[in-house]
Amino acid sequence: MIPVNADRFLADLHHLRSIGAAGVGKGVVRPAYTEADIEARKWLAEQMRAAGLTPHFDPVGNLFGLTDGPSLLMGSHSDSQPEGGWLDGALGVIAALEVARASREAGGPPISVVSFEDEEGRFGVTTGSAIWSGNLALDKADTLSDHGGLNFVEARAAFADLAGDFVDPSRFTGFVEMHIEQGPTLDTSGEQIGVVTDIVGIRDMRITMEGQQNHAGTTPMHLRKDAFQALSAFSTAINDRFRNVVTPSTVWTIGHVSLHPNASSIVPGKVTFSMQWRDGESDRLSRMEQIIRDTAEEIAKERGMTLSYGPMLGLEPVKMDETLRAALSKGAETVATGNWRNMPSGALHDATNVSKLMPVAMLFVPSINGISHDFAEDTAEADLVAGLKVLAHAAAQR
Amino acid sequence: MIPVNADRFLADLHHLRSIGAAGVGKGVVRPAYTEADIEARKWLAEQMRAAGLTPHFDPVGNLFGLTDGPSLLMGSHSDSQPEGGWLDGALGVIAALEVARASREAGGPPISVVSFEDEEGRFGVTTGSAIWSGNLALDKADTLSDHGGLNFVEARAAFADLAGDFVDPSRFTGFVEMHIEQGPTLDTSGEQIGVVTDIVGIRDMRITMEGQQNHAGTTPMHLRKDAFQALSAFSTAINDRFRNVVTPSTVWTIGHVSLHPNASSIVPGKVTFSMQWRDGESDRLSRMEQIIRDTAEEIAKERGMTLSYGPMLGLEPVKMDETLRAALSKGAETVATGNWRNMPSGALHDATNVSKLMPVAMLFVPSINGISHDFAEDTAEADLVAGLKVLAHAAAQR
Repeated sequence: MIPVNADRFLADLHHLRSIGAAGVGKGVVRPAYTEADIEARKWLAEQMRAAGLTPHFDPVGNLFGLTDGPSLLMGSHSDSQPEGGWLDGALGVIAALEVARASREAGGPPISVVSFEDEEGRFGVTTGSAIWSGNLALDKADTLSDHGGLNFVEARAAFADLAGDFVDPSRFTGFVEMHIEQGPTLDTSGEQIGVVTDIVGIRDMRITMEGQQNHAGTTPMHLRKDAFQALSAFSTAINDRFRNVVTPSTVWTIGHVSLHPNASSIVPGKVTFSMQWRDGESDRLSRMEQIIRDTAEEIAKERGMTLSYGPMLGLEPVKMDETLRAALSKGAETVATGNWRNMPSGALHDATNVSKLMPVAMLFVPSINGISHDFAEDTAEADLVAGLKVLAHAAAQR
Repeated sequence: MIPVNADRFLADLHHLRSIGAAGVGKGVVRPAYTEADIEARKWLAEQMRAAGLTPHFDPVGNLFGLTDGPSLLMGSHSDSQPEGGWLDGALGVIAALEVARASREAGGPPISVVSFEDEEGRFGVTTGSAIWSGNLALDKADTLSDHGGLNFVEARAAFADLAGDFVDPSRFTGFVEMHIEQGPTLDTSGEQIGVVTDIVGIRDMRITMEGQQNHAGTTPMHLRKDAFQALSAFSTAINDRFRNVVTPSTVWTIGHVSLHPNASSIVPGKVTFSMQWRDGESDRLSRMEQIIRDTAEEIAKERGMTLSYGPMLGLEPVKMDETLRAALSKGAETVATGNWRNMPSGALHDATNVSKLMPVAMLFVPSINGISHDFAEDTAEADLVAGLKVLAHAAAQR
């Protein structure tokens, strides 16, 4: 194993937290391209140089700490949500830094480090890694804007005097990302490490059902074409029909509902709602889609409603690389014997994009109470160090 | 029977429609206290005078056409929704005018006429009749404002130079209101007349269920406290539990839904929704309330949600007076033999307020396709005339 220094790792992690500290718990406010984000990246670049790596900014602010020659890439992102937790992507960056530094000191395998920019999606979705991996063209990204109307091309100008070219991905043999789970599975089970099997795929669509708006006093129940009742019947039916198709890690959500005219004395004539579902298997996502469409059509027909769909957003599931995953599993069994599990990632990560370029793998450490994207986000220090050690074990096997 | 003049009745009804004509179908735009509404009332006052009645405006614009001495009162309202139908309340006012006029010509029983003001609720709920009946104090009403911020006290100043005192209700022996059904029951059954048995009572409340907002990717289904799923389960459960309690004329509606944060990628943590139910029996309304509260508590407990209620709005059902109702039924059987029905009113009417002061009764004529409060609102002329004749028959029995 690479002899990592847990104290140095924790000290760096806490120092990074001081840049953009929210002043509420351990929270940070370090959205992409803000002063705090840029300051954090400059500080990270210094740490990379001090560790013997060559810091390199690309045109969108992705920061690499490079070895000479081929290397394994490790890292995540150091930008945060507008009200973010201190760990999130920062943990993966600092852990990568410590493993790279310790490996270099011990004459171990060459390891490069990365902090991708705007993983949190101020301008897009996992913007920095999406551009680097070719999933999002730079000229298209430049036209994106944040909620305040600032364009991406203006925001990334902050790195103009630091930026070199995009780093050639062929210099990396693979990518390993450590992250907090952001969910409750490990915290609930008491396990210390999750080795990610796949990053789930996602389907998201809008469904509209239109019936007949009417007087809530004078319209008898049997003559109603009530959009809310249709939505409720749809949700009940798919919950039932999904039972034979889903696994315990499949999820589906109706998170957005817009009723029209949305007044207590009017039978609602129209509803538009979101239907989102996620699973590690493309086939299962497709079977669920069929159930959703069949059920919506049945309900609409039974109830005399018209039915329409918005465009469907889809991202395919990404399987973790078998070899890298085996290395993480071996590390997990060494560090947390009998106290780790294989698990899918229900959230998107930079690794999804990077998987287009090279083999990728991920490991999770627990989130206390499953909280993330919140100032209250936290993980026990023992778990942070356990994750660091698993990463070091896996790196040593390369 | 009082020998009503159907042509004169229809001509007056069409003339009234020309005041504030929408220019779309037969629709009218004659909201309370607008120029069109005031012009219509001045024209109505002339017709009353021509019919031998004494026109009298009260301080809020309620217009009476009075006989000397005790009389039966008939009428409705001549204000409209911002996009209103031509019949709605106007039908009841013109029908009353024709019956009063014809009775006077034929030496029949004394009949007074009324057009209440702001039944459509620009400032309140059935504002004019609510004030006249004492359900709403004038000084309280004066503080109410419309959507544009105009105060009621300013609006009613339009009648300042016309207005006398409030009319003493003790001069009337009863009140009969004719109205379009505003629902599909008669149009669907092909029947010509509905004799109203009662104006249903209403209960309306807001219910809030709060669970746990969470990531729609990382939160397993069995750990969710999903507010939309709780609402859907609640709706399904009460639909089922109401079966043994309701009648075919009972209605209930979830018309307003507000999910938080209402985003497709977030398990919704909170929902506030409206629950409204109507029935002719107070007891049934109470039994339904108990089912609603018990079910909401059960669902909240099962799903780990907190539950809270907003204030409950309640209006008690109003039974129509037996004697007046019998007179209408006898008229209906004469005019539309075997082609009429007893039915409740699911909508509120001025008669609800007036029932505090004297015996009241109502009759309905069909609404084509059940449409009302819309420029497309209409009724076959044969049905309008049939309604007029039923009213005349009933008046003759006094």
